[in-house]
Amino acid sequence: MIKSINHIGIAVKNLDESIELYKTLFQLSDIHKESVVNQKVNIASFKIGEVIIELTEAMDESSPIHKFIEKRGEGIHHIAFESDAIENDLSRLKDSNINLINETPKDGAHNMLIAFLHPKSTGGVLMELCQEKGE
Amino acid sequence: MIKSINHIGIAVKNLDESIELYKTLFQLSDIHKESVVNQKVNIASFKIGEVIIELTEAMDESSPIHKFIEKRGEGIHHIAFESDAIENDLSRLKDSNINLINETPKDGAHNMLIAFLHPKSTGGVLMELCQEKGE
Repeated sequence: MIKSINHIGIAVKNLDESIELYKTLFQLSDIHKESVVNQKVNIASFKIGEVIIELTEAMDESSPIHKFIEKRGEGIHHIAFESDAIENDLSRLKDSNINLINETPKDGAHNMLIAFLHPKSTGGVLMELCQEKGE
Repeated sequence: MIKSINHIGIAVKNLDESIELYKTLFQLSDIHKESVVNQKVNIASFKIGEVIIELTEAMDESSPIHKFIEKRGEGIHHIAFESDAIENDLSRLKDSNINLINETPKDGAHNMLIAFLHPKSTGGVLMELCQEKGE
């Protein structure tokens, strides 16, 4: 079952410049940075209330984030919803004719299993389902 | 101070069709609907965890939501961050050279004061600040 919003992914051109912007916007001091090599992204994340904001920069031009920014510019890239049973939710959604980008979950950042739904079947919103490993 | 994400606004072409989609996605039964005449939108809202999802349909072609969908298609329109002192936050952001769409808060849905920041100074993300009236 989907129980909360885990994070909002925001595509940015330059991570360090965006970190400075978000520090100003939200009066932040500490922002966690990491690289996810298999997704070719550098990420900076911080929490606003219970939700993580994940600023995401392409490592190179083959990254999906680079293609997204080329097409749409910087901005909100996806919303990640946390499930307590990701495989059940994926199979339920597939049965309801929702188009899945990942039919089975794959490894994501922060020790999570993740799977994306296709925005063509979710009203233009790129949605990720995620679940902490070992839950 | 900005303390949490109040809601995520999603621009939709047809509110009733989108309500059916979101009922399927999130196994929802009850979705609250209202019209905000001065913003020319019909809204359906529901909570995922602590965050409200606000599906927003244009009432007519003069609505900003109509223009947004014409230009970018359906999808995420804005993120609303809840402040406990909206006027202080707006003046702090203005002093930091963040471009404000609304320099003073105006009335929004759900008995809230709201103000938008210009996406050109927030990395392409349309951000709303909001505060419950009477707080």
